[in-house]
Amino acid sequence: MKIAVLGTGTVGTTLGTKLVQLGHEVRMGSRDATSEKGQAWARSAGERASYGSFGDAASFGVDLVINATAGTGSLAALRAAGEPRLRGKILMDVANPLDFSQGMPPTLTVVNTDSLGEQIQRAFPQARVVKALNTVNADVMVDPSLVPGDHDTFVCGDDAAAKETVTALLRDFGWKHVIDLGGIGSARGTEMMLALWVRLYAVTGTARFNVHVAR
Amino acid sequence: MKIAVLGTGTVGTTLGTKLVQLGHEVRMGSRDATSEKGQAWARSAGERASYGSFGDAASFGVDLVINATAGTGSLAALRAAGEPRLRGKILMDVANPLDFSQGMPPTLTVVNTDSLGEQIQRAFPQARVVKALNTVNADVMVDPSLVPGDHDTFVCGDDAAAKETVTALLRDFGWKHVIDLGGIGSARGTEMMLALWVRLYAVTGTARFNVHVAR
Repeated sequence: MKIAVLGTGTVGTTLGTKLVQLGHEVRMGSRDATSEKGQAWARSAGERASYGSFGDAASFGVDLVINATAGTGSLAALRAAGEPRLRGKILMDVANPLDFSQGMPPTLTVVNTDSLGEQIQRAFPQARVVKALNTVNADVMVDPSLVPGDHDTFVCGDDAAAKETVTALLRDFGWKHVIDLGGIGSARGTEMMLALWVRLYAVTGTARFNVHVAR
Repeated sequence: MKIAVLGTGTVGTTLGTKLVQLGHEVRMGSRDATSEKGQAWARSAGERASYGSFGDAASFGVDLVINATAGTGSLAALRAAGEPRLRGKILMDVANPLDFSQGMPPTLTVVNTDSLGEQIQRAFPQARVVKALNTVNADVMVDPSLVPGDHDTFVCGDDAAAKETVTALLRDFGWKHVIDLGGIGSARGTEMMLALWVRLYAVTGTARFNVHVAR
């Protein structure tokens, strides 16, 4: 697939590198099309990797656009990418709207009666938004075997075919258990789980954990 | 132990019955000390069970008071029980501040920058509040073996000795894995998990599930 990864942070580079390793063509994008960080990633990730602006990346990513920006900047990043470049595309949103400004643990900037996933879907109604992977650390996203035993990841979104494509990609990452939580409104559930996640991180001392839904 | 169970709903009666079966003396309390529901429970649960007002129950429960009222009415119920009757006591809070008034799935009436557990601790500063069991259905609370495999429950609170007492009780209920999430502020994490819980309930079609933290 031709995939855009928006965001040059740990999540973006981790996803981008894994996607290239899986044989996909990946263009990473950020606000600054000349950033050394993005260019260095493209050089190191191999010939199927490239780098440019948010708009460059979104144009390139005809099969999938991944929002891996910080949640508090995601809507601005997607606007910079440009609504016409997202139209009709699968937009996999892995971001969390975490607010670290008041110290640790962070709170959420949108919560309870709304979610970042829903905000994105409303702002870009012709994108096919799928919330995914936001409940685990970046390294676990692309290598679930880092966490021992059975554990689960979640998808939600209003477009069934888009969820199928994202679910197939998660299986390529190694995910054995993908739970479909329904429409994009369920992003409230996975984003609000971060309130538990940050506290489990604090008491366990590792980010290499995940939940399994026993039933 | 002499235990108060505040609330005559499914959670209160399930906990009360199990506690009597374990040999504890239990007084259930509600707003109406003459309610047929509470009296019927006391008759059916055996000679160690009794029933009265919130205040009667709180006076009786010298070793433990359990808040099993609906989360939106918990502060009023505890005020009715009376602050002096809660002073110095372990107050195990199993309630969730769920708002069903806008339909399903419910939202939370307190969230993100506060929690019901913290509200209760602030309103009753001399009570030793421990948030516990609020992430599972009533039947699972008292019989975790209803959910197959390994799975976990959480405690949080500012009083270490109170958490130890509650943890010992959870082990008597059959819980093998009790994760201490730290202070009462972590009630935000377990209460906000309800946003995921209600959606898992919708898609799995059963309330007999729970999470295991794989690590």
